[in-house]
Amino acid sequence: MARRIVVIGGLAAGPSAASKAVRVNPDVEVLLFEQGENVSYAICEIPYFIAGEVKKEELIAYTPRTLKEKKGVNVRVWHHVEAINPTRRSVVVRDLKTGAKLEEHYDRLIIATGSCSRMLGVKGENARNVFHVKTLVHGLQIRDFIESAKPKKAVIIGGGYIGMEMAEALRGEELEVTMLHRHSLPMEGLERGTRERVREELEKHGVEFVANVHTEGFVVDKDQKVTHVVTTNGSYEADLVILSLGVTPNNEVARRAGIRVGASGGILTDQRQLTNIDNIYAAGDCCEVKNIVNNRQMYLPLATIGSRGGWVAGENAAGGKAIFAGAIRAIAVKVFGIEVAQVGISSEEARNSGFDVAAETISAWSRVAIMPGSTKVTIITIADKKTRRLLGANVYGEEGAVLRANTLAVGIQHRMTIDVMQQWDLVYSPPFAPLWDPILVAANATRKRL
Amino acid sequence: MARRIVVIGGLAAGPSAASKAVRVNPDVEVLLFEQGENVSYAICEIPYFIAGEVKKEELIAYTPRTLKEKKGVNVRVWHHVEAINPTRRSVVVRDLKTGAKLEEHYDRLIIATGSCSRMLGVKGENARNVFHVKTLVHGLQIRDFIESAKPKKAVIIGGGYIGMEMAEALRGEELEVTMLHRHSLPMEGLERGTRERVREELEKHGVEFVANVHTEGFVVDKDQKVTHVVTTNGSYEADLVILSLGVTPNNEVARRAGIRVGASGGILTDQRQLTNIDNIYAAGDCCEVKNIVNNRQMYLPLATIGSRGGWVAGENAAGGKAIFAGAIRAIAVKVFGIEVAQVGISSEEARNSGFDVAAETISAWSRVAIMPGSTKVTIITIADKKTRRLLGANVYGEEGAVLRANTLAVGIQHRMTIDVMQQWDLVYSPPFAPLWDPILVAANATRKRL
Repeated sequence: MARRIVVIGGLAAGPSAASKAVRVNPDVEVLLFEQGENVSYAICEIPYFIAGEVKKEELIAYTPRTLKEKKGVNVRVWHHVEAINPTRRSVVVRDLKTGAKLEEHYDRLIIATGSCSRMLGVKGENARNVFHVKTLVHGLQIRDFIESAKPKKAVIIGGGYIGMEMAEALRGEELEVTMLHRHSLPMEGLERGTRERVREELEKHGVEFVANVHTEGFVVDKDQKVTHVVTTNGSYEADLVILSLGVTPNNEVARRAGIRVGASGGILTDQRQLTNIDNIYAAGDCCEVKNIVNNRQMYLPLATIGSRGGWVAGENAAGGKAIFAGAIRAIAVKVFGIEVAQVGISSEEARNSGFDVAAETISAWSRVAIMPGSTKVTIITIADKKTRRLLGANVYGEEGAVLRANTLAVGIQHRMTIDVMQQWDLVYSPPFAPLWDPILVAANATRKRL
Repeated sequence: MARRIVVIGGLAAGPSAASKAVRVNPDVEVLLFEQGENVSYAICEIPYFIAGEVKKEELIAYTPRTLKEKKGVNVRVWHHVEAINPTRRSVVVRDLKTGAKLEEHYDRLIIATGSCSRMLGVKGENARNVFHVKTLVHGLQIRDFIESAKPKKAVIIGGGYIGMEMAEALRGEELEVTMLHRHSLPMEGLERGTRERVREELEKHGVEFVANVHTEGFVVDKDQKVTHVVTTNGSYEADLVILSLGVTPNNEVARRAGIRVGASGGILTDQRQLTNIDNIYAAGDCCEVKNIVNNRQMYLPLATIGSRGGWVAGENAAGGKAIFAGAIRAIAVKVFGIEVAQVGISSEEARNSGFDVAAETISAWSRVAIMPGSTKVTIITIADKKTRRLLGANVYGEEGAVLRANTLAVGIQHRMTIDVMQQWDLVYSPPFAPLWDPILVAANATRKRL
């Protein structure tokens, strides 16, 4: 039984793990190190903070003090773990305020070091008006900059989830927005039809979407501010630049200790969240997770996965026997007026995983067609011809897309066939769902492809 | 192989069956008799027609002519089937316009005679300003009456689904609405918490809900109009009376032919929709259906069940081998500002079916709590302590209740345990769903009751 559990990382999976450990075994001592100032805040809501829809205070879930008082977790902020010494079962920690270096013993260690923003690797990306959207501090900085510098032109580099949310936030603040993307369509990983619809929605709301473009550099003025983004497709004026290039697992301290990582760089764990080294667990955005649709490892830095992994790591570090079997991928984003969701694997992943793919696209009414407010929901299904299983789906539309994706997610997670799904008994109610819900329309159409 | 298929009833299951028969076997001749003027119209949308939200033309799915042209079904309206003669394989049909009586041969017969409105059995219920909400004609009559007579006070007798929809429709037309109900709370069959919330919503929107009251009669003036509804709780003024007392299966012609019916009076069929008599199928609101949660027969006159049953009856009558395994019950209604859904069986049904019931109620945010527009969704779960299966659920709230009920419906239909459901990988996206979707909050809380 563990006496002392050390947790590295205080944002999401770390506090989940730490709290769970105390909850399942009040006898353990849990010590959490966080290199920044804040712990446990709402990171996915930061674009909505920038948009002015939520307040700063609302973002903070726990402070170091409330994490101690309410959850029994000892927290040290401004402490950076520099090294793990598995043979001595200790970590080397730098107190960033004093510079002091200390060694702390652990019986069990939980690594929850999260992720790092991808960089462009070009000069000027550290200029004063270039921002990532990764931490609470970034959120505050961007909000301050908008209020004080009153920028007019924003360039968003990267057309993924954060790019979408930032485009909407900045358009809401009346900025001109140009989005530079290295692919022909935004939102890589989604199906072509979905991505085309997203581009259309961006353009409909005044975002200039520039496809197939690479950023080569920045023109920086003497105030250390970018004035132009220089690309393979010419130069774009900018008062504000957002870098939303995705993230990579923060695996440095783990790798140096000999902990194995996967192809993405994410730490590999078993279903107990145990790494290849005894007594060392990992959870959250620093890890890979098993995709239970194709049984392959994937890197999917999501709060849901981090929390579940954190719980399991915390419970097991405290002496329990919890299991996290993996994830299917269930993600969604609001792109101005539409909901966009993806569940399961993409057609490309399905092909790469050796499935014999049948894909189908349907558009059907969200409510009874003749009811006021009814709009079309589009469902793209990805099925396997051999087993007739649903492997993945994209769902988008003005309403009722995300929650329908969740219903499909259950079918995917439980390896149901399209035939079984076609027999689902779902609600028909004129203001909410038609006689044949779009899900059933999709199942019916997909069957004909199998 | 059937040569001639006769269908009795032209509203929902009848046309479904007839169309399907032609589709699977173009060689059959299909002849459909309908005693009224109209076939195949949107019946569930009639309250919304009365509310002025949809137009009359929009309600008509097929006319007798288009059913012939597009689906290959021969239709005779104003034809009432008076008798079935199984030994002669014929039906006796009355042409209601000429009064002529004819005998028509069938190779296969499909009974889709639907349901009848329940009556009060008191004098005055046939007065000119007393209406059921069962047919297109009723809808037109009510709309006409509102427009021409400009009633001020409406009394709705019956607090079920149609009562809810009519209360909203009539309040929208600025009528004072009193709802008389024989139970203490509206919406029998739902859980107590749901029913209390529904009553609250009715009252919030100015509907006077009178509980535990029985209608004893009507005061009818010399114009043959009701002026007062006389009840066990005094007398209520009325310019317009709606009777929404539910429906019973229209089994008369079937029973007289020796076709077996269940406790509710609904025709009993097997999974092929075959009755106890050779070559005679039945489908729709005249039938019972198997509840696949508790494996008991139930009477549940829903369009979804009628259509599925119709398809199966049509396919099999035309020589196919289709199966309709049964339904779980998936229903929803809009009650002014809230969505109310029920999936699976109620706690009472569960107890009566011998389950060891654990019930739990949770309220959780529909979106991330701090996002604008987030409201609470309430989920009431009904689980079996022994098998840990979810048996049923009520879901209600201002948004995201019905589609979440559909996700739970899949869990119920596939006999999943609460433990399995707690591991569902669902979407987290601030504008649409919190980190832990209300479904997962409900699963988590329910586990603690098991």
